[in-house]
Amino acid sequence: MTVLGVGLLGASVLRAVAARSPGTRLRAWSRSESSRRQASAWGETAGTPAEACQGADLVLAACPVDSLGSLLASAAPGIGSAAWITDVGSTKRGAHAAAAALPDPRRFVGSHPMAGSEKGGASESRPDLFEGRACIVTSTGMTDPRVVDAAEAFWRVLGSRVSRMEPTAHDAAVAEISHLPHATASVLAALLGDRAPRTDLAAGGLRDTTRVAAGDPDLWVPILMENADHLAPLLAALSGGADALRQALERRDAAATRDILSRGRDFRKSL
Amino acid sequence: MTVLGVGLLGASVLRAVAARSPGTRLRAWSRSESSRRQASAWGETAGTPAEACQGADLVLAACPVDSLGSLLASAAPGIGSAAWITDVGSTKRGAHAAAAALPDPRRFVGSHPMAGSEKGGASESRPDLFEGRACIVTSTGMTDPRVVDAAEAFWRVLGSRVSRMEPTAHDAAVAEISHLPHATASVLAALLGDRAPRTDLAAGGLRDTTRVAAGDPDLWVPILMENADHLAPLLAALSGGADALRQALERRDAAATRDILSRGRDFRKSL
Repeated sequence: MTVLGVGLLGASVLRAVAARSPGTRLRAWSRSESSRRQASAWGETAGTPAEACQGADLVLAACPVDSLGSLLASAAPGIGSAAWITDVGSTKRGAHAAAAALPDPRRFVGSHPMAGSEKGGASESRPDLFEGRACIVTSTGMTDPRVVDAAEAFWRVLGSRVSRMEPTAHDAAVAEISHLPHATASVLAALLGDRAPRTDLAAGGLRDTTRVAAGDPDLWVPILMENADHLAPLLAALSGGADALRQALERRDAAATRDILSRGRDFRKSL
Repeated sequence: MTVLGVGLLGASVLRAVAARSPGTRLRAWSRSESSRRQASAWGETAGTPAEACQGADLVLAACPVDSLGSLLASAAPGIGSAAWITDVGSTKRGAHAAAAALPDPRRFVGSHPMAGSEKGGASESRPDLFEGRACIVTSTGMTDPRVVDAAEAFWRVLGSRVSRMEPTAHDAAVAEISHLPHATASVLAALLGDRAPRTDLAAGGLRDTTRVAAGDPDLWVPILMENADHLAPLLAALSGGADALRQALERRDAAATRDILSRGRDFRKSL
């Protein structure tokens, strides 16, 4: 197995496979010298993506969503015809489009392990990162069904709860449960940052509400951009919801204020 | 000492005082029969607020902010002239206005321990709830300075980091660091609740971003209403911020998207 990209997710996959499937021969490539050095603790390392892929049955690309196409293109010469390829990105229509760079796009299956963190990098990796977490596996009408089965089996070995979805349905679903919460936290944190509030007095609510905003913009800008068509209408709804609460407060309308808070409480308690 | 109201905060004060200042004679009153029963484990209980206050040097009212005035009015006949009185509410202009119900409003000092939780009730109380947490003590030009000193000393005994503020400055500060994050979580959660999203696939980001929305509307509607003048402009800014991000995404403007996410990341990392 080859892992291309050794950040939080790539390094955690290496460590999880080493722990759960000890016979597996692991190989890794990373753009960063320091990640490559860390990866050498968990497997062989190679100088180029194509070299890393030689002889692999499975290639997993773990890079920002906007560099998947170029990474697969540089890996392609090394990928054997029997190998299957997957990724770990948070948007999936773009991932399947990027798979066009492969010699045989039917061997590509999308993966989205719901296991990111605002703390990135190989140094934050954990062999149990995927245990008990959801992982969405995506395929199109073109995808080889055996490759989809292989991807599902792979993530189950790592302890994930696997769901299968089409790329568009995936992107619509994660716009609601991941990209909108992330965007909301970013907007709130950016707004507060402009005001220099008394954060020395704050309790856990501020920390929790904004936690994901600490995520790396290099990862998150491409995600939000790729899923803009799903996310933009949700941000319009968020803007409208904030405005509706503002209006309720301005006219001292307790019933309307209570309606918003009660619906929010009901949703949160359902999680 | 008398505690009026035995929810999360009132019960935690009883238990914290019992642990930190074991000689103190504790008395409690609660509207709810079951809380009164729980309170009897930590001190005497009384049938009315006024009865509970007889002989007390310190009366602490721990009730929703919109019932402080009526609670103090019913307690007033039992409060001795040497007693000082405080509360635990999240808005402070309203608390000082409610203190007009007391025979001597100069003996009232406001307290806001930043230690609430979305999990309310005496059963969630903890004797260490206030340890290491901020507590804001508020006074007006009318407040007896010895009472302010007593309140600061009291919260320090319970382990809090005490700050002193004027009621208006307090309400402006907590609008930013507490009420806006709460309102944002409620708006986001209410929006998602209307859409029946795939919460079975969600990761920690959704849970954290919406956690405080689980708070009791009976407590939070009055808080947001009392601080509406500070909160409404912040909600207008949130609405505008969500709209700015939507527009950036719709025109596929990576630089504008990155600017919002980077400012959000910088603020969050500063916490």
